[in-house]
Amino acid sequence: SVAATERRLALLLLSAELASLLLTSCPATKPSMLNVHLVPHTHDDVGWLKTVDQYFYGGRNYIQHAGVQYILDSVVAELQKDPARRFIYVETAFFFRWWSQQSRSTRNIVTQLVQEGCLEFVNGGWCMSDEASTHYSSVIDQMTLGLRFLNDTFGECGRPRVAWHIDPFGHAREHASIFAQMGYDGFFFGRLDYQDKDRRMKTKEMEMVWRASASLNPPTADLFTGVLPNGYNPPPGFCWDQSCSDDPVQDDPALEDYNVDDLVSRFISISKAQAALYKTNHIVMTMGSDFQYENANPWYKNMDKLIHYVNAQQANGSQVNVLYSTPSCYLQELNLANQTWPLKSDDFFPYADGPHDFWTGYFTSRPALKRYERLSNSLLQTCNQLEVLGGPKSRSGPFGKGDSDTMKRAMAVAQHHDAVSGTEKQHVADDYAKRLAEGWAHCQVLVSNSLSVLSGSEVPRVFCENLNISVCPLTEGSKMFSMNVYNPLARPVSWSVHLPVNGTSYNVTDSSGNVVDSQVLPVSKPTQYIRRGRGYAKYELVFQVQAPPLGFSTYSITLLKTDRPRGPSAPTLSGRAYLKVTFDPNTGLLSGLTNLETQQSVQLTQNFYWYNASVGNAESSQTSGAYIFRPNSSTPSNTVLCVCQNSVVQEVRQQFSPWVSQVVRLYEGSRELELEWTVGPVPVEDGFGKEVITRFDSNISSAGYFYSDSNGREVLERRKDYRPTWDLTQTEPIAGNYYPINSRAFIKDGKAQLTVVTERSQGVSSIYNGSLEIMLHRRLLRDDYRGVGEPLSEPGEFGNGLVVRGRLLLTLTPPETAADSHRPLAQGLVLQPLLSFQEGAPKPTSKLEFSALQAALPPAVHLLTLSQWDSESVLLRLEHQYESGESKAFSQPVTLNLQVHTHTHSAVTALLPCCLLYRLSLLCFDCSFFS
Amino acid sequence: SVAATERRLALLLLSAELASLLLTSCPATKPSMLNVHLVPHTHDDVGWLKTVDQYFYGGRNYIQHAGVQYILDSVVAELQKDPARRFIYVETAFFFRWWSQQSRSTRNIVTQLVQEGCLEFVNGGWCMSDEASTHYSSVIDQMTLGLRFLNDTFGECGRPRVAWHIDPFGHAREHASIFAQMGYDGFFFGRLDYQDKDRRMKTKEMEMVWRASASLNPPTADLFTGVLPNGYNPPPGFCWDQSCSDDPVQDDPALEDYNVDDLVSRFISISKAQAALYKTNHIVMTMGSDFQYENANPWYKNMDKLIHYVNAQQANGSQVNVLYSTPSCYLQELNLANQTWPLKSDDFFPYADGPHDFWTGYFTSRPALKRYERLSNSLLQTCNQLEVLGGPKSRSGPFGKGDSDTMKRAMAVAQHHDAVSGTEKQHVADDYAKRLAEGWAHCQVLVSNSLSVLSGSEVPRVFCENLNISVCPLTEGSKMFSMNVYNPLARPVSWSVHLPVNGTSYNVTDSSGNVVDSQVLPVSKPTQYIRRGRGYAKYELVFQVQAPPLGFSTYSITLLKTDRPRGPSAPTLSGRAYLKVTFDPNTGLLSGLTNLETQQSVQLTQNFYWYNASVGNAESSQTSGAYIFRPNSSTPSNTVLCVCQNSVVQEVRQQFSPWVSQVVRLYEGSRELELEWTVGPVPVEDGFGKEVITRFDSNISSAGYFYSDSNGREVLERRKDYRPTWDLTQTEPIAGNYYPINSRAFIKDGKAQLTVVTERSQGVSSIYNGSLEIMLHRRLLRDDYRGVGEPLSEPGEFGNGLVVRGRLLLTLTPPETAADSHRPLAQGLVLQPLLSFQEGAPKPTSKLEFSALQAALPPAVHLLTLSQWDSESVLLRLEHQYESGESKAFSQPVTLNLQVHTHTHSAVTALLPCCLLYRLSLLCFDCSFFS
Repeated sequence: SVAATERRLALLLLSAELASLLLTSCPATKPSMLNVHLVPHTHDDVGWLKTVDQYFYGGRNYIQHAGVQYILDSVVAELQKDPARRFIYVETAFFFRWWSQQSRSTRNIVTQLVQEGCLEFVNGGWCMSDEASTHYSSVIDQMTLGLRFLNDTFGECGRPRVAWHIDPFGHAREHASIFAQMGYDGFFFGRLDYQDKDRRMKTKEMEMVWRASASLNPPTADLFTGVLPNGYNPPPGFCWDQSCSDDPVQDDPALEDYNVDDLVSRFISISKAQAALYKTNHIVMTMGSDFQYENANPWYKNMDKLIHYVNAQQANGSQVNVLYSTPSCYLQELNLANQTWPLKSDDFFPYADGPHDFWTGYFTSRPALKRYERLSNSLLQTCNQLEVLGGPKSRSGPFGKGDSDTMKRAMAVAQHHDAVSGTEKQHVADDYAKRLAEGWAHCQVLVSNSLSVLSGSEVPRVFCENLNISVCPLTEGSKMFSMNVYNPLARPVSWSVHLPVNGTSYNVTDSSGNVVDSQVLPVSKPTQYIRRGRGYAKYELVFQVQAPPLGFSTYSITLLKTDRPRGPSAPTLSGRAYLKVTFDPNTGLLSGLTNLETQQSVQLTQNFYWYNASVGNAESSQTSGAYIFRPNSSTPSNTVLCVCQNSVVQEVRQQFSPWVSQVVRLYEGSRELELEWTVGPVPVEDGFGKEVITRFDSNISSAGYFYSDSNGREVLERRKDYRPTWDLTQTEPIAGNYYPINSRAFIKDGKAQLTVVTERSQGVSSIYNGSLEIMLHRRLLRDDYRGVGEPLSEPGEFGNGLVVRGRLLLTLTPPETAADSHRPLAQGLVLQPLLSFQEGAPKPTSKLEFSALQAALPPAVHLLTLSQWDSESVLLRLEHQYESGESKAFSQPVTLNLQVHTHTHSAVTALLPCCLLYRLSLLCFDCSFFS
Repeated sequence: SVAATERRLALLLLSAELASLLLTSCPATKPSMLNVHLVPHTHDDVGWLKTVDQYFYGGRNYIQHAGVQYILDSVVAELQKDPARRFIYVETAFFFRWWSQQSRSTRNIVTQLVQEGCLEFVNGGWCMSDEASTHYSSVIDQMTLGLRFLNDTFGECGRPRVAWHIDPFGHAREHASIFAQMGYDGFFFGRLDYQDKDRRMKTKEMEMVWRASASLNPPTADLFTGVLPNGYNPPPGFCWDQSCSDDPVQDDPALEDYNVDDLVSRFISISKAQAALYKTNHIVMTMGSDFQYENANPWYKNMDKLIHYVNAQQANGSQVNVLYSTPSCYLQELNLANQTWPLKSDDFFPYADGPHDFWTGYFTSRPALKRYERLSNSLLQTCNQLEVLGGPKSRSGPFGKGDSDTMKRAMAVAQHHDAVSGTEKQHVADDYAKRLAEGWAHCQVLVSNSLSVLSGSEVPRVFCENLNISVCPLTEGSKMFSMNVYNPLARPVSWSVHLPVNGTSYNVTDSSGNVVDSQVLPVSKPTQYIRRGRGYAKYELVFQVQAPPLGFSTYSITLLKTDRPRGPSAPTLSGRAYLKVTFDPNTGLLSGLTNLETQQSVQLTQNFYWYNASVGNAESSQTSGAYIFRPNSSTPSNTVLCVCQNSVVQEVRQQFSPWVSQVVRLYEGSRELELEWTVGPVPVEDGFGKEVITRFDSNISSAGYFYSDSNGREVLERRKDYRPTWDLTQTEPIAGNYYPINSRAFIKDGKAQLTVVTERSQGVSSIYNGSLEIMLHRRLLRDDYRGVGEPLSEPGEFGNGLVVRGRLLLTLTPPETAADSHRPLAQGLVLQPLLSFQEGAPKPTSKLEFSALQAALPPAVHLLTLSQWDSESVLLRLEHQYESGESKAFSQPVTLNLQVHTHTHSAVTALLPCCLLYRLSLLCFDCSFFS
């Protein structure tokens, strides 16, 4: 059974339950002394101020001095000099590149270093993912990519035992849950709210057990979690990297500046002070930082001396013992110490490093990149599935050679905490997007090949990537074309398509030749900012499509007329008796929402506002920037200038200002309202950066509570001006109440729940009773002093500021059944149908409809991954997608017989229900599983 | 015979006369191609922005990132990876320290690398000496210290074959002469006048033979000399040090920024352009710079790739062949090329790197340090001699343990081109001075021990180091004391001593008990600036002393009276019928000088002026700074405010302004006039830095010609607005006519020569007919953008600006006999008597007079060095101190039988006359040579 509460096999290690963690390679410690574990490490951003490739090679060092190739060269050379030395490495994206350039003899040396525990991998994903703006499915994918390489290359010795998220700006509970379920023994990080840290230092709660899921039975998602003492840096005065200026150990008394006595006494004093904050007689010191160890010799040479001279003091009665160590070895000592740890069950958002320094801006920074990343995940999953379903011809077929690896790597890179987070320099953001585009280009060939296998048609296939801005040359000009709708979900979907066209009437037929209702509307106006120079469609052809589970259907479209379309109609939308939306006739704003099934109504207004970005004030010089959100006033400014009602059938088009507009859509048979917003170019001529939000104000009695998801999966309760684990002093009434959402947020009272489902990661808050605000876009004129060195002012295509368009889906339901709507809604946005177009009519011989499944999976079961693992096997990940207790209908264990759902029999064993998630060794099936 | 024209044995290698230079370790080249010799190197200043110790360890990296220990660690590791790799190392001061910290196994590895030619020493002195402000005797000493270490450690394989002065700011002919005589095969440097370089590039005269002596018969002082193409840096775009930001070779086509094709084509193009400036099909590229190779891996990894990819183009017809090489191997190829080279016989001063950027300020920068360095040489030579003469008890005797090594190293460090040059940061200048002071402290113990052996008196001995500012507590307070006068010259000297006292009449007796004439004068007034808080002497006791060659005499001084001394007398000075000096009764300035022996008179005025330092102007932003002299006007400003005649017997005291004064002295029996100047604190309240000169204006028809010495040895002709080797465009009428002097300068016409002998290095020029100006002091308010990053504004003891006191000796002679005066005068200033004091009367048993020589050496022969070499032998250096043709009396070969001059017989062999200079292997004698 695939149960919400039993999704994991691996043993979880808690302090008192030491199991697999018996590392023979760990250094000896002294039980009677304070043991200081020096952990040499480098933190190598997979892109930030430079692109990942520039970081690897050390190109463009004028931007930042950093070259990972040299780090690994140098560390490997230094580790060979003394078996006591240790090093940990984190980012497999870099290690993989480096490894591929090494000679066999170097590889042998490295393998030996790994086997001896001198070089230890921690975390081991392709990157160190962002925790606020990543979706769990892509996090699992990027971890898989890295861990698989380590496993293939080094076997069990290469397996990371510790998760290591030293730099991400706040920590998501779902990440901890994933790490726990992946079998990690512990989790270390560096950044948490300064108030939280202060309290934890005082109460010795820097280390804890994080109970990371409210659904899984403990200890399934329990994870030992440690806050590192100095972020991830060495203690002050002990940085011996080439990038630092601390004095080395100068131990020749004949030379000036001999400093051994001073260094030793400072180190001992720092060690004792640090030990006072932790529970055991073991402490850890992170000896390294960003892109350090490019020249490892100064580090090791001086640490060798430090260890020598500090430990030499033991002869004089010192009780401090320093040693080279690793997080795993440190963790092993903590386990042996048989301590009781405090329990943590909320998360570590939002992160503030000072009273006016809330890192809540990056929840929204670079909204277009955030959407492109999310969309790319959908494309990748489709690509993965079609690689399996189309067989070997997918990779080499009529359209040439295609692959999914490029996209897998591009997506893995994009999970980095300075990638999808939006906190990188502009040229690096461009590079991430370019990689995704290249990944998709490789996938397009694969998808074309695969669809030609599955459909029998080798007519060239066009993927219109700009449909969101009504650009698609084929549909704009063609008189007859077909459209393939591939559905990556394991259940059938219905989807509304908007095709840019120049005709005013079309005949649309489905796979069976049945005519499908279609309408032609004028292209919405706000695209004037977007479409200059691109596309020539006057109209949009709108119709609903269906596609079977894990399969496609095909629609044929024929131009009928080119005269004028119908005019506008009434300002009330109601679908097939599910939802009713009202608008204020005076303002044109949304005024109410009614669920016709449940007969629930709420007063609901929606408007767009902006916060002026702070430029610093007397309290603090902190500005708003890529990371940090700091408005200069506590109330948003209303931006509404005019409202243009321009509804055609089920659409209301609203124009709020020259740069803010929205189309409100209610689709036939839909239980949700779609709000398609377009924001930008954000004007900054007044000298202020702006953070644009949309706010829903309702009569729901939310009383300061609101809810947001963690990485697209479990939902956490949020409360205004409150933190579950400490007595908050709120210093930023807006920024200090922002939280990340990845897929949904809601407010509720006893009767009604208003849920917003998003298609990208954003920042959310509820400042007023009954309100829910979502930050949509940010354009800033200042850097926020966290390293990027650029104001977040995306230039856009024309240099005058980026225009961003996106969608929100709104539902109104009783709280008890809300999940029944928002879970499938969110998964439908995450894995959206892929449209592809072929000129002309389909060949009679071609197959217009296909499904890889004999039957849809049950509603509670989500097909997370179907991907070619190697030539012999595929990777299948299924998950139960409902939280414990959130749905009467679906939060129940589900039994699934895969044979029922698939076409042919296969080697599915009894193990299957237990091995659905994350444990790579259990996730390989024979590829004959799918036909 | 010790002949001026035959002072050297070693073979000199010229292009066509290849002798010892057959290096088997050199890489193969391709005769038909352009061979590009990559020379990996680091340039490690022995102090500059940081002290030498800070540079060694890498301390205070916030000032400048530089740590030599890591450079040598890293290079040795990288050289082991590929036998084709090469590295050269220069500064033995650093190598010595590093070597002393290495394990036996590392030493073995390094020895093997040296033997295989992978690690090659070039230059090999303790430092890379300054060429403008160093004295040849100290240059030879510092070279000896470095070369001896290399010879002792590595034998013949460690012997540098190439002199490598890539950074000094102009090049002295005497340096080239010394290098030629030391047996170097070639000399390379990076800095020369930009106009000179432009011409040489056009005419392919970047390489030449430097005929470096007008006295020695060619090819004795001929030296192949090459100007490096890029200073000492790599060509633009090819710097792969951690301190650079050039892109690495990015050779994975799968990654962004693949750049192999571009790099290869740029490199080939640069190589061809460079080859067009040189005569052969071999060119050299210096691959390194200041403190580079701290992480050698990026350098070698990328050079490996560069070599691989550039040479791979040979398969496509490229004619460029790149290889790792060394200067020696490059030179070997030049020799094999059998070329004829242009001849150079002047020097490379002054150095300008732009029209308004003359590096002529540093000739004078930090005048106090320059004097202290020079004085320290005198002290070191005395220390060396007394170590020999006093025997083993010198090093461990009644006053404890003493040594000369500390001073030898301090002096060797002080020769560095950012040490005595005055172009270091203030804290580094302080460190150099501190090292000299420590050196002298160690020597004081040695000298005390040695003098106790030689005199039989163990009464504590006081060395009054502040006699120049009339401070010596012993003489100020004592009623009876003795004074030992040690003379380090090999001929007897007469010397005038000025002792600070508080009595008004003293009885002074010599070693034989004879009364010596003595006078008591008031302490001169200008010391108000100097003496605040130090010393309490009201008077100076003045008397003449004599000391035997290489020996001492002892004077006893007894207080007689404490009433008032005699008053002032007439403003005309005349000594024992040799010289007559007149002063203008209206201005108080010097007005005439008469040599009473030769009956020559010249009109002669002397005054003090300053140039306002440029702060940059429309022509150029160049300022005056530590390196660069750039006055903001072409005429000096007269500073005279008042003249106070205050002559006592043979002194005239002049006060020019509150911060400029002078005492003019004529000693009994002297042929020279002494001018003791005191300048400072230089006022800068007007916002202008000032460069203070004294200028002599005479009626000598010098017609734009003047003369200055090169490193204290041979004299070069200078001519205003003229360079011997190219057609000068003069762009700085003052700064562009400045030259360094180390010991003397003169102007002359057919009849008269006015010579100024100095006691430190300074800048000199002759801007007007009959004038000679010497820059005495500089205080500046701006940095000159050459890296120091500090304005040269020495704070002095009280923070308001440094006061400097110094002496000039003036002679008026016929040109033909001028050298007969200035040679011994200058040597007398270089090796001045050392005074030491003992309280009370000498013990009757003590020996009051001593000479190590049975007879003085002939006037032409100078005892340059007498120093303990090891426990078995001493180092003796004798030199002929007259240039060819400069003296009828003394510019002749001299035959010297050492046995005549020494007390006891020794193993002096027939080799002796030939082995006087520099060839260390020939310079060790049995220590029994001296009694």
